[in-house]
Amino acid sequence: MAPTEDSIKIGVFDSGVGGLTVLKALLELVPEADYVYFGDTARLPYGSKSIETVSKYAILAARYLERHDAQMLVIACNTATALALDVIKQAVSVPVIGVVEPGVERTAAESKNRKVVVLGTEATVSSHAYRKALAVRGIEAREKACPLLVPLIEEGWVEHPVSEQVSRIYLGEAFTDGYESADILLLGCTHYPLLKPVLRRVAPRHVEIVDSAQSTAQAVAKMLGENCGRESAPREAAHGAHLKFFATDSAEKFRRLGTRFLGQPIDNVEHVDLRE
Amino acid sequence: MAPTEDSIKIGVFDSGVGGLTVLKALLELVPEADYVYFGDTARLPYGSKSIETVSKYAILAARYLERHDAQMLVIACNTATALALDVIKQAVSVPVIGVVEPGVERTAAESKNRKVVVLGTEATVSSHAYRKALAVRGIEAREKACPLLVPLIEEGWVEHPVSEQVSRIYLGEAFTDGYESADILLLGCTHYPLLKPVLRRVAPRHVEIVDSAQSTAQAVAKMLGENCGRESAPREAAHGAHLKFFATDSAEKFRRLGTRFLGQPIDNVEHVDLRE
Repeated sequence: MAPTEDSIKIGVFDSGVGGLTVLKALLELVPEADYVYFGDTARLPYGSKSIETVSKYAILAARYLERHDAQMLVIACNTATALALDVIKQAVSVPVIGVVEPGVERTAAESKNRKVVVLGTEATVSSHAYRKALAVRGIEAREKACPLLVPLIEEGWVEHPVSEQVSRIYLGEAFTDGYESADILLLGCTHYPLLKPVLRRVAPRHVEIVDSAQSTAQAVAKMLGENCGRESAPREAAHGAHLKFFATDSAEKFRRLGTRFLGQPIDNVEHVDLRE
Repeated sequence: MAPTEDSIKIGVFDSGVGGLTVLKALLELVPEADYVYFGDTARLPYGSKSIETVSKYAILAARYLERHDAQMLVIACNTATALALDVIKQAVSVPVIGVVEPGVERTAAESKNRKVVVLGTEATVSSHAYRKALAVRGIEAREKACPLLVPLIEEGWVEHPVSEQVSRIYLGEAFTDGYESADILLLGCTHYPLLKPVLRRVAPRHVEIVDSAQSTAQAVAKMLGENCGRESAPREAAHGAHLKFFATDSAEKFRRLGTRFLGQPIDNVEHVDLRE
């Protein structure tokens, strides 16, 4: 199905393929939109880098998507959102939505004990973006950096004893010292939804898992629904959704690795060389 | 000790801090030189990226070192050497030495069974730089990509059961199907020397470990010794060796992470913003 004239074009940005879990959720909830996805695969990962570096890269990507007619931007990268959401908003003239606030909103709605654990990259955790946003809502958060989870997922070791052992170590270090009663495990990295079954087995049984990818798609759907009465759009249009992908490293590798994250084959990937 | 007027200035380049294992070996073998080290930490890792991307980054770094008066360059990064050594040589006018050839030379001298295993990043393995260079010397090589080892080392899990388990899996997949008789384990990534004790325990007992960082420093020492009669230079000068570091991401993080690799405190790190 070709894009209809009145369909909105949503730009989705991530450092790599992780943001495809957000796009996957968006395709289910906002199937009538056109999507242009930008993966900054030549410079990934952002999660171990500084605020200056991440801001510089994120602004370049956001402007690229705006030049490609995105009418709104979803920053589908926890690190870029945590470190650079404000500078991205200043750098473009279209509305920008990040992944932190929607996950925080959902967590605030669900947590009874007002104590939660957030998993993220080193950079996301160091920024304390989650802790600050949750504190405003009266929730205490322990933020736990999990630098091995992304490489394990990219190695394809999703249902693997090593991933289970590593998850057990990380969660053991998080749900302790006063956080035994934390009742939400917030996945603050778009890669982590792929490990959800493992994390479900390893997390304490009373804990609910909140996935920021899913929460963000719900926030976008709500925003568009409120603004344009789109909530009644036909769901079956998903299949015909118009998708275009840009990657700064190899298009072939993006296609190969991305398929697992999007849950469907990826075509239409173009390599772009973004000058700093 | 200030650099003497006749001391040579050696530029050492890596995508991050891994190349500091090469610098460490150089400081022991060529202590009288001045060193300028460039870590492209804003764009690391190179190991998962394409030849075009790695070449572009490596050339920028090599030219930067040349502009900072390096009289020879050591490409202390297996991925950059494997993918881009020739284009780097063309881009600068000083002599360039990579890490692949020295490790291969040493392996060729040591292997009795003419069958070896090489561990490296995904990109190094895909390039088959080691297999080709060893084949010329009549040695068969199995190249094994080990994408989890770098993140495990950077997490600081060096003497850790997970690193041992992951190493056991990788080596188990390598020393099989005709490679049970391989008698050399060539470490084709500058991070891996930190895991040498674990790899020693996990590798078959008859296997000798060859470390490309160590071999490269020996090759540099030999080259300078042959050219300038430097082999008799006083070893105790190491402490006063003149060191300067550049990093494209946070200088503070480079200092913190790098110390483990260099085996001594790191001062004098300057952040640089390298435009593409």
